[in-house]
Amino acid sequence: MAKETQFVEQIADINADFPQWYTDVVLKTKLVDYGPVKGTMVIRPYGYAIWENIQKELDTRFKKRGVENAYFPLLIPMSFFTKEAEHVEGFAPEVAVVTHAGGEDLAEPLAIRPTSETIIGTMCSKWVQSYRDLPLKVNQWCNVMRWEKTTRPFLRTSEFLWQEGHTVHSNQAEAEEETLGMLETYKEFAENCLAIPVLTGRKTEKEKFAGAVATYTMEAMMRDGKSLQAGTSHYLGQNFATAFDIKYLGNEGVLNTAYTTSWGVSTRLIGAIIMTHGDERGLVLPPVVAPIQCVIVPIASRKPGVVEACEALKQELEAGGVRVTLDNSDNSPGWKFNEWEMKGVPVRIELGPRDIEAGKMICARRDTLEKTEMPLTNVVEGVKALLASVQKDMLEAARKRCDARITYADDIQGILAGVDGGNFVKAGWCGCRDCEDKIKEETGATARVYAEGEVKETCAVCGKKSEHVIIYARAY
Amino acid sequence: MAKETQFVEQIADINADFPQWYTDVVLKTKLVDYGPVKGTMVIRPYGYAIWENIQKELDTRFKKRGVENAYFPLLIPMSFFTKEAEHVEGFAPEVAVVTHAGGEDLAEPLAIRPTSETIIGTMCSKWVQSYRDLPLKVNQWCNVMRWEKTTRPFLRTSEFLWQEGHTVHSNQAEAEEETLGMLETYKEFAENCLAIPVLTGRKTEKEKFAGAVATYTMEAMMRDGKSLQAGTSHYLGQNFATAFDIKYLGNEGVLNTAYTTSWGVSTRLIGAIIMTHGDERGLVLPPVVAPIQCVIVPIASRKPGVVEACEALKQELEAGGVRVTLDNSDNSPGWKFNEWEMKGVPVRIELGPRDIEAGKMICARRDTLEKTEMPLTNVVEGVKALLASVQKDMLEAARKRCDARITYADDIQGILAGVDGGNFVKAGWCGCRDCEDKIKEETGATARVYAEGEVKETCAVCGKKSEHVIIYARAY
Repeated sequence: MAKETQFVEQIADINADFPQWYTDVVLKTKLVDYGPVKGTMVIRPYGYAIWENIQKELDTRFKKRGVENAYFPLLIPMSFFTKEAEHVEGFAPEVAVVTHAGGEDLAEPLAIRPTSETIIGTMCSKWVQSYRDLPLKVNQWCNVMRWEKTTRPFLRTSEFLWQEGHTVHSNQAEAEEETLGMLETYKEFAENCLAIPVLTGRKTEKEKFAGAVATYTMEAMMRDGKSLQAGTSHYLGQNFATAFDIKYLGNEGVLNTAYTTSWGVSTRLIGAIIMTHGDERGLVLPPVVAPIQCVIVPIASRKPGVVEACEALKQELEAGGVRVTLDNSDNSPGWKFNEWEMKGVPVRIELGPRDIEAGKMICARRDTLEKTEMPLTNVVEGVKALLASVQKDMLEAARKRCDARITYADDIQGILAGVDGGNFVKAGWCGCRDCEDKIKEETGATARVYAEGEVKETCAVCGKKSEHVIIYARAY
Repeated sequence: MAKETQFVEQIADINADFPQWYTDVVLKTKLVDYGPVKGTMVIRPYGYAIWENIQKELDTRFKKRGVENAYFPLLIPMSFFTKEAEHVEGFAPEVAVVTHAGGEDLAEPLAIRPTSETIIGTMCSKWVQSYRDLPLKVNQWCNVMRWEKTTRPFLRTSEFLWQEGHTVHSNQAEAEEETLGMLETYKEFAENCLAIPVLTGRKTEKEKFAGAVATYTMEAMMRDGKSLQAGTSHYLGQNFATAFDIKYLGNEGVLNTAYTTSWGVSTRLIGAIIMTHGDERGLVLPPVVAPIQCVIVPIASRKPGVVEACEALKQELEAGGVRVTLDNSDNSPGWKFNEWEMKGVPVRIELGPRDIEAGKMICARRDTLEKTEMPLTNVVEGVKALLASVQKDMLEAARKRCDARITYADDIQGILAGVDGGNFVKAGWCGCRDCEDKIKEETGATARVYAEGEVKETCAVCGKKSEHVIIYARAY
């Protein structure tokens, strides 16, 4: 048993120092490494494989919604940003700029895209001529860059990977439907694939995307009670269509300005997975996106027949579509248990001579650490059922943790006490920017999302009539 | 029939003006559009879908070879390039440079990656400690930037998409085997998926990758007889391992310098597909990577039951895994035939009332324009078999065209006449740079690849003893 604590000691105590636990886990499980330029990250194979699984799941959903993938240039003329006033104000301070290329100074500086509304707007204005060209729905999987002062792997880095969808519609109702429909798709994906329960709804004016009419968000509660904005869907109205001249000839022969939307999620989701499910032993990965769903650890592997039985089991599971690995290394079983627990593999199979003789195997779930025996017959079915249980139970456990930590408050002191206790706090708001700013100043919490349909009498700050209920939290 | 020439007239004559034909085809089939910054391209959904199919096919092959995907930062400190002398000389003139970010001037200018040997070398030097860490095989799918003076969509643009694989090995033999193994993988992929026959082999010193010990290439003959470098695999020896300090502790306890390789293909392959298979009617896409493999065109679609039968057929094919579309637009069948022929869809199905009554459908192949009847039973099997024939026949036809245009020459005049006639020309070479340069000057052709195993008596330039046979061609 001595060896079993080897890894537990290597990562910081999740309850004592959550930020250090996070850093330890992402580095030691080889999800990520620091890049040579400050604020950049290298996504290592174990981390990138999670992203590939996220991409696969989301991409299928996008295509079902009639979205096609495309690719737009990385470099955007600086002048494009100035066409939408709010947009340039929001993004100009974070932009990285190319001033020199091919041995010459450029006539106009070029921005590395922080987001692509401006360049996609420019192209759509060329492609959209008639109502027959609408709706137009494109998405790109790409890198973007936002120069940040304080960075953390996956959560906030100068460069990150994401998808950005952009749609153009002939009318407001359809564009709003698209915006909300995509929010629903994100929520369904987050819950069913990442096992992350999310709160969805509209952002306040202060927190919305620079240039949007309305931003809708999905917010997820991390283990420390802080919120992580896990995805956003923006209704852009005619702001960008006007700025970039996206007009179409309607079937009544009149030239109309279009309506647009944009929506995106990023490699931040990997951070969300880590901080939603992780525990004192390290990562806990949801089976749908886990790079390795099942690890086989041979017990007494020198005994005749053990390695062969493990190999046969591996091949059977692999053929059945389970992402499986066999740990044939020289390390002790205890060492391996710790290693694969730290790496968050959802199911561990232990197989030794006695198990083989008894026609069974031991299956240990990573989420609950529960061990069960399973027959060595119909293993694909058995393991897949277990993975499905893990997936389902992880969502339920996360939802319980989240639900238990949503509280109410009537004043700023209440909000402060709530967020200090690691909660999301619902409180009334009069709707004015001053009150929103004051909460940020005094509690460090921000308005994460409107709690639609809920009612409070008074604003927690000024005591005037409350117009909305807001969910406040500190955030990543 | 009048309408059927509508699209043929829109694209330039392939035999009279091949460059204009290419431009017309890529723009009018909506594969690509020009980006707002000079030399950039927007890959539109129809073009990007080809890239997605290429990615899928290659990625599976890479993973079978034990390669894992990862992601490395876009921005590379300029100082990294200077660590490998040949490398900086080769790439510095084409680099785009970020000098300003987050509202401040940067202390050190950052290059947008033209290729990632330097940054991946830096990371590998950290990750590789012992022989147990080797071989290390990573790949990334990403954008790169090389500032070019003359650009053409897919063939040469300032930004393009590619994959770059990088491997680290403990010894020379294994690294060389990896280099050649990947070249074989590329060749098999090009031939079986893209139906493009390729000539593979080593590049001359002049033509090799900046920093490599040896570059291996696959060269493809385009319709106009010019060569397109479709993929390269580099044996880097210890050049980058020395420059970036990639060392490992061998099992005998001694610190050794590693051996590395790199290899890549890019969105250029889409250009190769277009210029290998295209004809006077437009694109001809190989079924394996065609975004749409089969289009159904209803005949006399207002007659009862036609649209329903087409829809049922579409659903059956779709369920069977065929990428199929049904053209239900208001255009005439003739207009649709031209449209889908221009877009290069491998198989067109025509279905009208008489066909339905007779229990059959008409299938038209894009490659040979041949029409055949097929029963409306077992359609998935029938269409898949036809697609497989198209794929196979396209490769054979391209190979015949290529083989017929490989000639021999004994002197510069012969090489000039050969390439003027749209051929690849094999000729003897003494091995000296002067002779290689002279051929370029006088014929515009470059040494594309060594013709391994072939023998010629004398160098086509100086008449001295020939050391190698070289395949010369003009190139994209």
